[in-house]
Amino acid sequence: MDKVNLADKFDLFQDTWSPKIVAELNGQQIKLAKVQGEFDWHHHETEDELFLVVKGELVIELRDQKITLHPGELFVVPRGVEHRPVAEELTHIVLFEPASTLNTGVVHSERTREDLERI
Amino acid sequence: MDKVNLADKFDLFQDTWSPKIVAELNGQQIKLAKVQGEFDWHHHETEDELFLVVKGELVIELRDQKITLHPGELFVVPRGVEHRPVAEELTHIVLFEPASTLNTGVVHSERTREDLERI
Repeated sequence: MDKVNLADKFDLFQDTWSPKIVAELNGQQIKLAKVQGEFDWHHHETEDELFLVVKGELVIELRDQKITLHPGELFVVPRGVEHRPVAEELTHIVLFEPASTLNTGVVHSERTREDLERI
Repeated sequence: MDKVNLADKFDLFQDTWSPKIVAELNGQQIKLAKVQGEFDWHHHETEDELFLVVKGELVIELRDQKITLHPGELFVVPRGVEHRPVAEELTHIVLFEPASTLNTGVVHSERTREDLERI
C-alpha cells in the first residue's frame, strides 16, 4: 500500500480538464486535474462535488454567486446546483466525489471524460 | 454557500485527537484534526479512511508497514486494516471518511469522540 504525493502526481500529466484518479475509498474517488480557461456550465443530478485548490486560483461560478478559491481552500457544490469552474491561470485542483461522477455532469460534450486514467 | 479556508479553520481549535467537521458531501465528511503523540491501535469495520497531511509529519503504523506522510501527501487505510497514527511534532491533518466513522473505529476508549463539532 502506497502513499500519494500530490505534487509528484501532478507532475505526471499536463492536459487540462481531464481528471486523473489517484485514490478510491468508500465508493468515492480522489481526482487531480489541471485546469485553465472556462469549463462548461453543468450540474450533477445526485452527487455533491468537492473542489480543493492546491495551486493557482479557481473561480466556481454559480448562477447567483462566484466563489474564488486559493490554495488551501475548498468548496462543495451541492447536487443539482449549476456551476462553471473558471481559472485564469493554470490551476491545480483536487476533486473528491463519487466514483460515478462525470466531469460534465448531466451535459455530455467533447469535454466529457469517461474511463478516467489512474495515476 | 461558503468556501472553507483550511488554515483559518485550523486556527479555531487547539485540542488534539479531536476531529472537527468542516464539510459534508455524499454521506462523507471532511474533518480536520491536530494530532501529536501516539493514538490507539484500531480499525474501522466497514469504512476506508483517508489521511492528508497539511502541516507536520504523520506516521501511520500498520501491523507490517509504516507510512510516513508529509504535507501534500495522503494515504487511504482500507477498511478492516489495523492502524495507529503517530505524530512526533504537532501535525495538522485532513480526514475524508464516511459520516459514520468513529475516530477510534471499533475500539471505544476515552479517546473516542462522538457528536463532533462543526466549525
